[in-house]
Amino acid sequence: MPVLTNIAQLYTVPPDGGADCVEPIADAALAWQDGRITWVGPEAELPGEFQDEPHHDAGSRIVIPGLIDCHTHLCFGGWRGDEFAARLAGASYQDILAAGGGINSTVTATRAASAEELAMKAATVLSDMARLGVTTVEAKSGYGLNTAAELKQLEVYRQLNQTQPLDIIPTFLGAHLVPVEYRERRADYINLLCEEMIPAVAEQQLARFCDVFIEESAFTLDEGRRILECAKRHGLGLKIHADQLSSGGGAGLAAELGAVSAEHLEYASQADIAAMAQAGTVAVSLPLASMYLKEPFLPARPWIDAGARVAVATDFNPGSAPSYHLHLAMTLACVHQQMTPAEVLRGATSHAARAIDLHHDRGSLLPGYLADFTVIDAPDINHWLYHFRPNACCFTVKSGQIIWPTSAAEALVSCCS
Amino acid sequence: MPVLTNIAQLYTVPPDGGADCVEPIADAALAWQDGRITWVGPEAELPGEFQDEPHHDAGSRIVIPGLIDCHTHLCFGGWRGDEFAARLAGASYQDILAAGGGINSTVTATRAASAEELAMKAATVLSDMARLGVTTVEAKSGYGLNTAAELKQLEVYRQLNQTQPLDIIPTFLGAHLVPVEYRERRADYINLLCEEMIPAVAEQQLARFCDVFIEESAFTLDEGRRILECAKRHGLGLKIHADQLSSGGGAGLAAELGAVSAEHLEYASQADIAAMAQAGTVAVSLPLASMYLKEPFLPARPWIDAGARVAVATDFNPGSAPSYHLHLAMTLACVHQQMTPAEVLRGATSHAARAIDLHHDRGSLLPGYLADFTVIDAPDINHWLYHFRPNACCFTVKSGQIIWPTSAAEALVSCCS
Repeated sequence: MPVLTNIAQLYTVPPDGGADCVEPIADAALAWQDGRITWVGPEAELPGEFQDEPHHDAGSRIVIPGLIDCHTHLCFGGWRGDEFAARLAGASYQDILAAGGGINSTVTATRAASAEELAMKAATVLSDMARLGVTTVEAKSGYGLNTAAELKQLEVYRQLNQTQPLDIIPTFLGAHLVPVEYRERRADYINLLCEEMIPAVAEQQLARFCDVFIEESAFTLDEGRRILECAKRHGLGLKIHADQLSSGGGAGLAAELGAVSAEHLEYASQADIAAMAQAGTVAVSLPLASMYLKEPFLPARPWIDAGARVAVATDFNPGSAPSYHLHLAMTLACVHQQMTPAEVLRGATSHAARAIDLHHDRGSLLPGYLADFTVIDAPDINHWLYHFRPNACCFTVKSGQIIWPTSAAEALVSCCS
Repeated sequence: MPVLTNIAQLYTVPPDGGADCVEPIADAALAWQDGRITWVGPEAELPGEFQDEPHHDAGSRIVIPGLIDCHTHLCFGGWRGDEFAARLAGASYQDILAAGGGINSTVTATRAASAEELAMKAATVLSDMARLGVTTVEAKSGYGLNTAAELKQLEVYRQLNQTQPLDIIPTFLGAHLVPVEYRERRADYINLLCEEMIPAVAEQQLARFCDVFIEESAFTLDEGRRILECAKRHGLGLKIHADQLSSGGGAGLAAELGAVSAEHLEYASQADIAAMAQAGTVAVSLPLASMYLKEPFLPARPWIDAGARVAVATDFNPGSAPSYHLHLAMTLACVHQQMTPAEVLRGATSHAARAIDLHHDRGSLLPGYLADFTVIDAPDINHWLYHFRPNACCFTVKSGQIIWPTSAAEALVSCCS
């Protein structure tokens, strides 16, 4: 039964509670067994039964729950760096689409790639995420847009769950956009989603959630309702990309259907904010997308003031958010969403866990929860989120096993060296 | 005479030239001796004399000049993370000042710290900067604000130049703000600057440049002129913090006095932009400060269109820019200053070198220049600056010596592993 001691500040981040529930335990210790936490509290109160167990030393640093990136588009073919440069040189998104770029180029590349290629590429990202203290990653399909390619993406996630230590929570996002070949017959694509893809995903248990992008350029509110009601009948949890670029009512639909989360939300109406707060639907903010797109950031205060839970995630994808740096998303959430470091910590741990319906299992450091935690080289979370460094994470532990650093060599050069 | 081969793209970034001067050499090689470059070109044209020299392999990655962070406040006591959190929780800067916070708390902490403490703290930062590919760092005083403490900061830089591999280019910034004890007699502080501090700094050769913060909260245009003219008489080069929060004429003064650079510049007038372009004064943009302060970013296009050179630096300091992540500053310069990756690369290499008057010595990969370069794990600079990662730098070479990674253990976990 291993014990971690010499923790300057331990943030348990319970799943419920007021603003003060993020108050850390000073001079703390943490014990676990078989991948789950058995005891947490002040080190001076560590029960006698733990005294002779193997001790690890946190070096008088802080310990937080393993970070949860609750919104990513992890699996995709290709990149779009040249498009980024072309836009900076003056090309419009229309120019880029006309030249075969934009999201359609990612769809083409994802369809063309083998599952093995996609898995290797995603595994590299997951390995870097582990270095940042991330232990659970929600990951969407949505670049296949036909049955075979959507299932291929979800099968990549199933494979990665077996071959690397992070937990991947898969979401089916066949309703990301209407693919080019269905542009003139979009009803047929919605039929395909409801009659073929969703049943196949559910039958093969390839996803826990179904997500729909409700936006002028993607799906209407009515189309979204039909797709999500179908997914619900098939036993999938619900998520919605809502109100990112205009106020389209997606947040209200999420509340109405009891979705676990709605994402982006920059243009949600005050009525829909209240509805989501009432329904307990998590508001997932994605500040890296706002940064890269030069779009407004989510104003988080109206949400928090209304009693909604605001999560913070990366939105990692090759177009609008080509970064999986969750620490950067968290610092941006402080500065640009006017969230305190304590609110942002909840946003990437307990609230993020709730956004994937796992808040009774992870996202908090309490007895019975997964022993997923990370040691951060900072005196407190205020300093950590203020002083942006390449990486302030010293150790990452997933289900009680150290996953970063994984060798003496790595340990020498982690920030703990 | 070591040779680096297998370089997918080598960016020489010459100090002069049009927009196309950043075009890379494909399949390139680079040779150096005694810390300086001796040959650069396509590997197929590598002269016979180099064939038997020790070869290093760049792994088909890209090579760029060692990055130059041409504007930092590297040496300071304390941090201000709690102030960051207090502001997010609703405290105003006036509240924080009243509680003893703000820049005055950094002055107090810097005065109280020993030179050894300050040097150790700065050395940690420099070591992390080397990992990011930075090989030269401009560093200002300005948190002492009395003769002894200003000289102490500059002596820290002198010591660091002898004890670690990066070059530190010191700038005297006694005119950062009027210290509290001179608030009712600011003329006395300006006399102290001109009659005691500047002569001492010049006599002891502790700085290459003198910088003045011209802003409503700091020094007037007339005060700045007097201080800078005094510095010029003492043989110091000139820099100005100008037009950051309001249009105060600092950019025009920089041009008039022949300053090597002016910094921030978000509110510079069109006439002053033209004057700086005409004078060859480098415009140093500081996007991290804009990000942390939620202030407008420098609109770079009017500067570039006017023929001015725009550099990109971190402004690393404990208040408005508590990050030394130059890659992040560069990505922000792309997105928010609408600079292309090629323009941003110049901004952190050859233009940054010009901002410290060293553009004939570094910032470009040409024969005779310092062998300061870095190997970046990306297919090209578009991808590098688009796909923001914790660190994409695999190797950093300073004056021909590898300074990151410095051991086999480090090499195992650099992104080249």
